[in-house]
Amino acid sequence: MSLDIAIRNGTLATADATFESDIGISDGKVVLISQNLPEAKREIDATGRIVVPGAIDVHTHFDRVHSWHGKKNTDDYETGTRAAAIGGITTVVNFAFQEPGWDLRQGIDHELALADGNAHIDFGLHTVVADLSVDGTLSAIKSVADEGYASVKIFTAVPHVGLTDPEILKVLEVCRDDGVLVSVHAEDDPLCNHLVNHYLEAGKTHVRYFPKARPPVAEALATGRVAAYARELGAPVYFVHLSSRKALQEVRRSREEGGEVYVETRPVYLYLDESRYELPDNQGNLYVCLPPLRSKMDQETLWQGMRNGEIQTYATDHAPWTSSQKLDAPNFSRIPAGVANVQTSIGMLYSDGVTRGKISLQQFVAVTSTNPAKLFGMWPRKGTLTPGADADIVLIDPRRAVELQNGGLASNVDYDPYAGYQGVGWPVMTISRGEIVAEEGRILSKPGRGRVVKRSRFQSL
Amino acid sequence: MSLDIAIRNGTLATADATFESDIGISDGKVVLISQNLPEAKREIDATGRIVVPGAIDVHTHFDRVHSWHGKKNTDDYETGTRAAAIGGITTVVNFAFQEPGWDLRQGIDHELALADGNAHIDFGLHTVVADLSVDGTLSAIKSVADEGYASVKIFTAVPHVGLTDPEILKVLEVCRDDGVLVSVHAEDDPLCNHLVNHYLEAGKTHVRYFPKARPPVAEALATGRVAAYARELGAPVYFVHLSSRKALQEVRRSREEGGEVYVETRPVYLYLDESRYELPDNQGNLYVCLPPLRSKMDQETLWQGMRNGEIQTYATDHAPWTSSQKLDAPNFSRIPAGVANVQTSIGMLYSDGVTRGKISLQQFVAVTSTNPAKLFGMWPRKGTLTPGADADIVLIDPRRAVELQNGGLASNVDYDPYAGYQGVGWPVMTISRGEIVAEEGRILSKPGRGRVVKRSRFQSL
Amino acid sequence: MSLDIAIRNGTLATADATFESDIGISDGKVVLISQNLPEAKREIDATGRIVVPGAIDVHTHFDRVHSWHGKKNTDDYETGTRAAAIGGITTVVNFAFQEPGWDLRQGIDHELALADGNAHIDFGLHTVVADLSVDGTLSAIKSVADEGYASVKIFTAVPHVGLTDPEILKVLEVCRDDGVLVSVHAEDDPLCNHLVNHYLEAGKTHVRYFPKARPPVAEALATGRVAAYARELGAPVYFVHLSSRKALQEVRRSREEGGEVYVETRPVYLYLDESRYELPDNQGNLYVCLPPLRSKMDQETLWQGMRNGEIQTYATDHAPWTSSQKLDAPNFSRIPAGVANVQTSIGMLYSDGVTRGKISLQQFVAVTSTNPAKLFGMWPRKGTLTPGADADIVLIDPRRAVELQNGGLASNVDYDPYAGYQGVGWPVMTISRGEIVAEEGRILSKPGRGRVVKRSRFQSL
Amino acid sequence: MSLDIAIRNGTLATADATFESDIGISDGKVVLISQNLPEAKREIDATGRIVVPGAIDVHTHFDRVHSWHGKKNTDDYETGTRAAAIGGITTVVNFAFQEPGWDLRQGIDHELALADGNAHIDFGLHTVVADLSVDGTLSAIKSVADEGYASVKIFTAVPHVGLTDPEILKVLEVCRDDGVLVSVHAEDDPLCNHLVNHYLEAGKTHVRYFPKARPPVAEALATGRVAAYARELGAPVYFVHLSSRKALQEVRRSREEGGEVYVETRPVYLYLDESRYELPDNQGNLYVCLPPLRSKMDQETLWQGMRNGEIQTYATDHAPWTSSQKLDAPNFSRIPAGVANVQTSIGMLYSDGVTRGKISLQQFVAVTSTNPAKLFGMWPRKGTLTPGADADIVLIDPRRAVELQNGGLASNVDYDPYAGYQGVGWPVMTISRGEIVAEEGRILSKPGRGRVVKRSRFQSL
Repeated sequence: MSLDIAIRNGTLATADATFESDIGISDGKVVLISQNLPEAKREIDATGRIVVPGAIDVHTHFDRVHSWHGKKNTDDYETGTRAAAIGGITTVVNFAFQEPGWDLRQGIDHELALADGNAHIDFGLHTVVADLSVDGTLSAIKSVADEGYASVKIFTAVPHVGLTDPEILKVLEVCRDDGVLVSVHAEDDPLCNHLVNHYLEAGKTHVRYFPKARPPVAEALATGRVAAYARELGAPVYFVHLSSRKALQEVRRSREEGGEVYVETRPVYLYLDESRYELPDNQGNLYVCLPPLRSKMDQETLWQGMRNGEIQTYATDHAPWTSSQKLDAPNFSRIPAGVANVQTSIGMLYSDGVTRGKISLQQFVAVTSTNPAKLFGMWPRKGTLTPGADADIVLIDPRRAVELQNGGLASNVDYDPYAGYQGVGWPVMTISRGEIVAEEGRILSKPGRGRVVKRSRFQSL
Repeated sequence: MSLDIAIRNGTLATADATFESDIGISDGKVVLISQNLPEAKREIDATGRIVVPGAIDVHTHFDRVHSWHGKKNTDDYETGTRAAAIGGITTVVNFAFQEPGWDLRQGIDHELALADGNAHIDFGLHTVVADLSVDGTLSAIKSVADEGYASVKIFTAVPHVGLTDPEILKVLEVCRDDGVLVSVHAEDDPLCNHLVNHYLEAGKTHVRYFPKARPPVAEALATGRVAAYARELGAPVYFVHLSSRKALQEVRRSREEGGEVYVETRPVYLYLDESRYELPDNQGNLYVCLPPLRSKMDQETLWQGMRNGEIQTYATDHAPWTSSQKLDAPNFSRIPAGVANVQTSIGMLYSDGVTRGKISLQQFVAVTSTNPAKLFGMWPRKGTLTPGADADIVLIDPRRAVELQNGGLASNVDYDPYAGYQGVGWPVMTISRGEIVAEEGRILSKPGRGRVVKRSRFQSL
Repeated sequence: MSLDIAIRNGTLATADATFESDIGISDGKVVLISQNLPEAKREIDATGRIVVPGAIDVHTHFDRVHSWHGKKNTDDYETGTRAAAIGGITTVVNFAFQEPGWDLRQGIDHELALADGNAHIDFGLHTVVADLSVDGTLSAIKSVADEGYASVKIFTAVPHVGLTDPEILKVLEVCRDDGVLVSVHAEDDPLCNHLVNHYLEAGKTHVRYFPKARPPVAEALATGRVAAYARELGAPVYFVHLSSRKALQEVRRSREEGGEVYVETRPVYLYLDESRYELPDNQGNLYVCLPPLRSKMDQETLWQGMRNGEIQTYATDHAPWTSSQKLDAPNFSRIPAGVANVQTSIGMLYSDGVTRGKISLQQFVAVTSTNPAKLFGMWPRKGTLTPGADADIVLIDPRRAVELQNGGLASNVDYDPYAGYQGVGWPVMTISRGEIVAEEGRILSKPGRGRVVKRSRFQSL
Repeated sequence: MSLDIAIRNGTLATADATFESDIGISDGKVVLISQNLPEAKREIDATGRIVVPGAIDVHTHFDRVHSWHGKKNTDDYETGTRAAAIGGITTVVNFAFQEPGWDLRQGIDHELALADGNAHIDFGLHTVVADLSVDGTLSAIKSVADEGYASVKIFTAVPHVGLTDPEILKVLEVCRDDGVLVSVHAEDDPLCNHLVNHYLEAGKTHVRYFPKARPPVAEALATGRVAAYARELGAPVYFVHLSSRKALQEVRRSREEGGEVYVETRPVYLYLDESRYELPDNQGNLYVCLPPLRSKMDQETLWQGMRNGEIQTYATDHAPWTSSQKLDAPNFSRIPAGVANVQTSIGMLYSDGVTRGKISLQQFVAVTSTNPAKLFGMWPRKGTLTPGADADIVLIDPRRAVELQNGGLASNVDYDPYAGYQGVGWPVMTISRGEIVAEEGRILSKPGRGRVVKRSRFQSL
């Protein structure tokens, strides 16, 4: 057997086990797991390193025009995947929005054109179903799934893209029949709108009112309702960026009654909390995201949920804006939502989760790689280290100390929401299909090498 | 690299992934995972087979003298491990009871003597702490753990072995400090005794009153109480043979409040239900076990809990008695509890769980092998298929049809509680540390080759 | 003191106490409670009778044109209040619907015209807010409340009258500020519509699919959502005709979090269950009501909730249709909903509740009279037996055996949904403001003597 | 009709209604409720006063020798009932402890002797069952109930008086059959002992460790267990001095499953919180009671529970000690538990509850008088204002401002735990069986006029 790459002397970690072994790569695939490899064209010494499957971030918004104000966010596929690769991510799943009047295929073609020649790492596309008034939208779910875009995202709130409840029921039903998992952004639109207007009309425009206007109960209501719809229809459902204890309680209730519910959480909710909105002036604007940052108690619940297996995936919802775009808003409801996160998310979870003992190394691999790969039809081609799998591999230095600072990101954003964060344990090398694409914070690959990942239908975890 | 055994053309399955790969073994260890192995001394063709880590049954009672009536159950270490090996189990953990007046070491020595020269496969020993009046019992927990017997079992009920609540608190506290996981048999003793006496005094001696006298609420009360004690003390806790929805609800409550609780369930609760106690004459006696069989609703909850990850392990509580021992009892409270199960448990879970789609293949491996190995200090030496691990491997034929019948068991019992059960998907070869110990229902190994497994301290899952 | 009426030798029962006392009436008011009354113009011997405050049915639909099919139901104010008086009811609250384009005052005037010259007993009017597109609707809530129509009803479902969620939030907010209690018909409209269409499109048009198309989860979703909205806004809320365990669970959750929630249930859910929809041919049509009849388990929960104080009121939702109107529907979704009930509701609750020991006599008075009087601004003028209160009094014969049969109702309907029901304990005399309006099943009063009850703002129970 | 007393121009309030009426008394009984009374021998002008049924405090410990240290508390029947009468209480129920070796009748005789010639108001006796080793104890429950001592109290914790779980089951079963309600002091003894020892052994003897050593989870465990026992046996059960949210959650769970559970709370938990234990030096000792004071969150839950009807009664557990007895204890576990409260409890509930709008006037009457009378077999003789009832009546001045201070109590204690409390609305006259026993803070009656109240068997509320 002739090896292209041999990674030696490392500690391999999968969702299953941690063990001392070398790993051999040929033609971009893992081919050999053994403590005793033959010589390879390229030798990588992983002494003192943790060798894990590359992270899969199933929630990114590269090159997205904001639905409210028409501006683009600051990262395109090139800068976004560059930052991701440096951060230990080997696959992203971006969103193909159905703009008003478009059919689903147009959304995909639009994204493919944006990505063309730009991606450093592999990427998939979720189809955002947002305009059921377009003929054939429901039946197109199956046809685009057949082409490898086998997942759907919907919004219960958010202007321009939110579906009504009757539409949500139809999408869940069609997706159940087509074997497509539906991702849901869950906030109760009527309640949020009512409260936003309530505060704005009272002149309470500062960002400190932002979390009060989109409270946990709004997330819980939408989560509970969609989970109940899905359970009644026999459909699985996946909630993106779950942020609060109340919403997780709804998930628990649904599961106890037999619902098949999956939960994603997001770095901002694990490392930041709502006290940021109280920062002097309107510095709190920099932390606006949907749903808002929550309390310390919610944070603790999310860590506990990850530890207990109640939360299956960890994804960034990367959607960066410049600080001036964030700070210039006339009131809390006009601040573009989202922050940059692909470059730091994996290192932070390793540092806060594994190094500080909140989750095990197996749980880290499960939520960053194995579970997203399984739920979104990429497994076992991705998400594990087994013969035949893509050689998407990340080396982590468990003793590497890092302090984040503004200006330190490879993406196009001018601030880091986590500036000041100190971590121990950080990705130091990223391999994508057998190619070292990033090392020690530098990108090594050329844009355009990343390929579209055609994904299979949903299977239960 | 020179291989002793090459298993080729199979489908490997771990708790992490299913993938096509060969697996190479040397010196009783897994050494190579690759689709392309060098030649080996012995070649095993696994075409059409699922290749999994050998099952670990952490709850067996071989050669146990019954605490109520002084009789031995029908399997000793030889017949018990023989049946287990045939059934796809490569490790058992039996119990070293502290008989009245004994110190903990005596219980272990007693078991080691019983096992000596008899075991076909590896075995560990849990220490049953039952007599705190013996000086030094609490401090002995640490010393026997240092020797590799690093787990403790306690009973809240059951005459002669049950601890009082103040004693339970002490054991949990000591074990927390010593890094030892406490397994708990949870039934509320006062309530069970009260109800048993109530029925017996009313002349209701038939086995149909047995489940009413030890109802789910009794299990839930003891589960909730010990979980609360453990949470208050900051100790992890493991409940053996959880049988009911009510008890699982207590576990959910404890976890939501931050408790670290692990749950085992048992085949009888997944495949049988309380309607067995209504069989003509006293045939229901054959199904007496502690806790009793429960309702269909409880059964559905346990499957759901296994699917959702709420239940971590699957173990038999194998404790066989002859049909005459079961049938001769004067009333329901005098029937020796327990059934034979080590030979059929793994095949039944594959058939009912994986073949019939109730759980995934990864969940099957997790609950039968990976999780028990992790929780009880045997991982990653056992419980996974990675270089360096013991070559404890089982081949399953996923299309093998089986119908169980009385007389079909290799153990010493004259009936099979599952007689009539029809399954598809069954273990056909068992390899222990690189030696084929059973194949196609026949034992191939010699008694005495099984070794004691010295186990490490507890680590969180 | 000169008495018009003396009721002697009875057993008085209020929500507070049962005691042996006479009661004296002058000028239509209670003036004297004593075991020793002076002589009166009219003496009533209540030996062996239970003397209670007249029942208040806060949920009737007299003379209502059906919103779906344009037909009137069979009872107008004359026949409806006649049946009610015979049944032991001394006050009803009917609904003043805001028809499309109407202002709230038009709905009230419409009802007042219908009632004019017809009512045998006193009546109030709830304002149904159904068309917020009419200018000034929200501000009119206060003005009609100032006139004595101080309660609002809204629908989350039901075509033509249902409000959207943003509208519901506005109504709750305005009513909170105006001191007006909002009654809610709670069923999730999108889910019900989806399921109704699902069954109809599958050709499943028989009434047996009716309960499946409007399941408990639909009621629970709407109940939970509106309760959460109300709690978030700090508004009290009242759920009419709660029918299911799931919906009551939502109420419990809301109360545990501090919500001020009141619950009404309805005779059909206490005495009938969903098995009626399985009757031969389409006889099940006769029992169609919104929400549908539920299971035996739900029934048991409602009784328990009434006993525990979780349910505050008992009202009929009286809305009778002829059997041909019910039976002629082309499919389950076209059957006019509702049944006749004012004549039998009080007797049945006494029989099933008090005589059979499910609730106490005090609870009976509380849910039929005292609580509805308090919640809807009629207390202590009505709902109790104290000096100064209206002399609205009912005598119950606790030993009277009754068997209901078709044709036995004083209202205009040709069938009794409870035909065959056997009770013990039944109203035998009804006194309204000191006038005997019904006795032994016969009406004694003239139409038109009933007056509008002007009601005060909401106060917490 | 000749009246002994006429109370004119007041506002009467019962659990049912508030109304303007006079009330006439003859021979110690209420005889007439009317706005128009004949002249009486004694006229009382109640203008501006609220006239309510006298309060019934079903939880007092007068003349009790402490079970731990053998000292008597500071109030005997004379001083205790004097303070109670001044405070608006017309009936107390004290406890007849079964001292070790005594039969139940001895406990009663002991109390009757202590009370003889001393009581200012009527009193009943609960039987404390504490020594089942005395022959005939269980059967004596019926015989003393036949004599009018028809209620039993048990302890799950507390040295010398606590029963074991098997004993609790027996008592519940016997009392169920005898129609006797069992009151329960619920704290998990093993957990409390374990934690007390844990703190003391660590040298943490200050009273600030007292609440940590008897935490809410201990109360919840015992509450949940006894409620489950009772439900399993079909027995009603009454929890004294419920103090925590966790314990109330257990009650809610039991009720949802059909349990018949009643709950009493106690002033200390409504007006004080655990921050008292942090007072300088050991001033916190003055607030030691069992269970300990809890958090603000628990306090809010108790108010909410009273408002929602989840809590049925309000009683003091009056057990006063001098400040030196409280302060001299060597560690937190040796402080005699209990405080003086009969003189201030009613005024404080009126002030904090009714005046400040937390509960309605009807709820005030229900929890202080009507409900305890009903649950403990004194109703409708006591607990209401109806013809035939004992004329136990209290006049409250709703505008009376009061500030509590040390030295202000008529009982023998030298400090008031509520010193500094400011209230508005306070009892100003107390009438017992037609005799004015206290007025404006002064006792008017002679000791010995109070009679034993023989009480009937339990009936459901």
